Amino acid sequence: MTTYEALNERTVVVYLREQLPEFFDANAPLIAREIGDGNLNQVFIVRNERDPQQALVLKQALPFLRVAGESWPLTRERVRFESQALLLYNKIVLGLAPEVYLYDAEMSVLVMEYLGSHEVMRKPLVSRARFPQFADHISTFLAEVLFKTSDLYLSGLEKKTLQAQFINPHLCKIQEDFVYTNPYMSSPENQWNPEIDAEVREVRSNSTLKFAIAEMKASYMTQTQALIHSDLHTGSIMVNETDTRVIDPEFSFFGPMGYDLGALFANLVLNYVSHFAHTKDEQTRQDYQRYLLNLIRDIWLQFAQKFEALWVANNTGELVPSAYWLYPDGDAAFASYRNKYLENLLQDAAGHGACEMLRRMMGIVTVWDISSISDLSQRAVVERYAIRIGSRWVMEHKSLTSVDDLINIVEEETRNRH
Amino acid sequence: MTTYEALNERTVVVYLREQLPEFFDANAPLIAREIGDGNLNQVFIVRNERDPQQALVLKQALPFLRVAGESWPLTRERVRFESQALLLYNKIVLGLAPEVYLYDAEMSVLVMEYLGSHEVMRKPLVSRARFPQFADHISTFLAEVLFKTSDLYLSGLEKKTLQAQFINPHLCKIQEDFVYTNPYMSSPENQWNPEIDAEVREVRSNSTLKFAIAEMKASYMTQTQALIHSDLHTGSIMVNETDTRVIDPEFSFFGPMGYDLGALFANLVLNYVSHFAHTKDEQTRQDYQRYLLNLIRDIWLQFAQKFEALWVANNTGELVPSAYWLYPDGDAAFASYRNKYLENLLQDAAGHGACEMLRRMMGIVTVWDISSISDLSQRAVVERYAIRIGSRWVMEHKSLTSVDDLINIVEEETRNRH
Repeated sequence: MTTYEALNERTVVVYLREQLPEFFDANAPLIAREIGDGNLNQVFIVRNERDPQQALVLKQALPFLRVAGESWPLTRERVRFESQALLLYNKIVLGLAPEVYLYDAEMSVLVMEYLGSHEVMRKPLVSRARFPQFADHISTFLAEVLFKTSDLYLSGLEKKTLQAQFINPHLCKIQEDFVYTNPYMSSPENQWNPEIDAEVREVRSNSTLKFAIAEMKASYMTQTQALIHSDLHTGSIMVNETDTRVIDPEFSFFGPMGYDLGALFANLVLNYVSHFAHTKDEQTRQDYQRYLLNLIRDIWLQFAQKFEALWVANNTGELVPSAYWLYPDGDAAFASYRNKYLENLLQDAAGHGACEMLRRMMGIVTVWDISSISDLSQRAVVERYAIRIGSRWVMEHKSLTSVDDLINIVEEETRNRH
Repeated sequence: MTTYEALNERTVVVYLREQLPEFFDANAPLIAREIGDGNLNQVFIVRNERDPQQALVLKQALPFLRVAGESWPLTRERVRFESQALLLYNKIVLGLAPEVYLYDAEMSVLVMEYLGSHEVMRKPLVSRARFPQFADHISTFLAEVLFKTSDLYLSGLEKKTLQAQFINPHLCKIQEDFVYTNPYMSSPENQWNPEIDAEVREVRSNSTLKFAIAEMKASYMTQTQALIHSDLHTGSIMVNETDTRVIDPEFSFFGPMGYDLGALFANLVLNYVSHFAHTKDEQTRQDYQRYLLNLIRDIWLQFAQKFEALWVANNTGELVPSAYWLYPDGDAAFASYRNKYLENLLQDAAGHGACEMLRRMMGIVTVWDISSISDLSQRAVVERYAIRIGSRWVMEHKSLTSVDDLINIVEEETRNRH
């Protein structure tokens, strides 16, 4: 047990020599560089100067005196949730999240794998990059983590014990407010393109739409299906041609599985619509947009197939034990239950994903794919697409029964409607 | 802080003199009597011999050596959950649960109000007793406790902090297994009247029914709406002509509100059907059965009215803040959201209540109203009613939109079908 002190580029090296003596070659010259935004955390990359492949990342929460009294415990807790989630990801499925080398609660330090050959996924999608392994990797990640932290796999005692370690009210509140509430009402932090003022006002006064959003919020606040990442947009994923890593799970808690799937689908749709402005050549644009819709389809279909295969092979949880289905037609009934379960997940994904799309158009958090469109009129065209798709996804989510229903709405709302 | 020791009729007096010196008159001669079943807990009634109105109940968990290693911590936890819940009930609404005088974690002791002028509700209902204040009291209890522990009233931080204090996996598992699972499959502890063997086999092989039950189980396991009592049958309620008290909340956790309403309705329906055997005079029977159905209707209508009134007056939670509804037609949309929320609660009550009815016919726990019918053929008539009503309640619950829909099923399934 050490006493907290904020590390710097010199002391971080001493700290690592002590705490992780095996990681770097003995006597290797270590260089630390702070790359964080200096807000709540500092982030160091520490390397062996002689062998730059030998490197790691150290994240430490900072006790800034200027922030309100509660922030310090909150920031420390963030590091705990992030560490716990990353450790669990790596325990469940290898190689789809950065490896954790050390979590030091007293120092509020998380030391993890340096991903020097990966990039955050959001920007390359604007440059029309393709990631041939991504659908396979992310569907594996989602199927494994969601299934294996649910009541389908864990005993009630195991699941509830884990759930108690992820009671995360402060970070939940950020999503509750900024995904499901404030964007759809008057709130000082909201921001939107003035050219879509009419559409934003329309959303804020559409009872049917807000009713549907409120139902998704209730699901987010009270449906403890599995450990969800809870911020799984394309900025929380690092990729290259062959590898995929999910990062930054500080929002993790036990919530609705559909939230993670929905956030991912929504961010791919936001990227899809952004190409109406970014990609002028029509053929190039259509090709890439087709790639994105196929990606959504592939992710869903592979997820559903993997999730169900895990379930059939490991129905060890207590929700619907195999013995429960042991009767004439029991196999068919269990299969039908699994199908219905997955259909509900798809519908939840559409509903939660819709809220992610809408809030990015009119809340505090924009999305770079679209905010980077400098011409406000062109940006407005794109944003109107997103608002129409999001509105339909959430209002119609209970009637969507296949991933093609979600994709069809994207195509219908963007066809011949510049 | 004391060290644990099992109390006896002598030491319990010394303990109370020390821990609650103000409760009894100084120098009053105290008499303790142990009335527990000697299994997991001991229960003492301690009185002032000169003034028998001066009395209290002390419940203490026992560390029986003969039971498995895990039982002792579990038993201690039960006392904690029961104490926490009773304290919370009394904080939320006065006079509808026994008052708590002391909770001593180290001694696993709960000291509470002695209810000498009340009786447990189940048996008097078999003797056709009527409790004119009951619908008012229990609807107030349910509306106040469910509303004020939900996201409609509490902030997210308050609710999730409270939720963390009620992670209760072991007692949840008892209901998960014995309400939603084992009764509908082969399990050695199941018991049923051999005369309804065909009906029990029919339930166990009815895919549609078991599918619906599995959906209710998922709700019980993952829907954290509010602090529910989670065992609110007529044996957990003490009553007299003027007073009602909810007791024994050791199963408490954050679960679906409809479970408590459903358990109560189900037990009133089980009492209703039991009178086909208990009450031979048709007019007397019909009168009392009408009373019971009116009681269900009154409880629901008063609950819904009180719950909604609390919501309108205290929309302080974060689920749907008032500012969210501030737009043209916002009042109407909020009203429609509240109506839908209550309709969902009624549907959940029917679904969960149905499982309670069914499991009492074919699981480990019978219900005295019906198990006390000694003639097995007469008992079978009653049990078949309960199975038909329960089956319809759960399979049709999503289409039930008023309490009269639930009541109509009770009447339809018992009319001219001896």
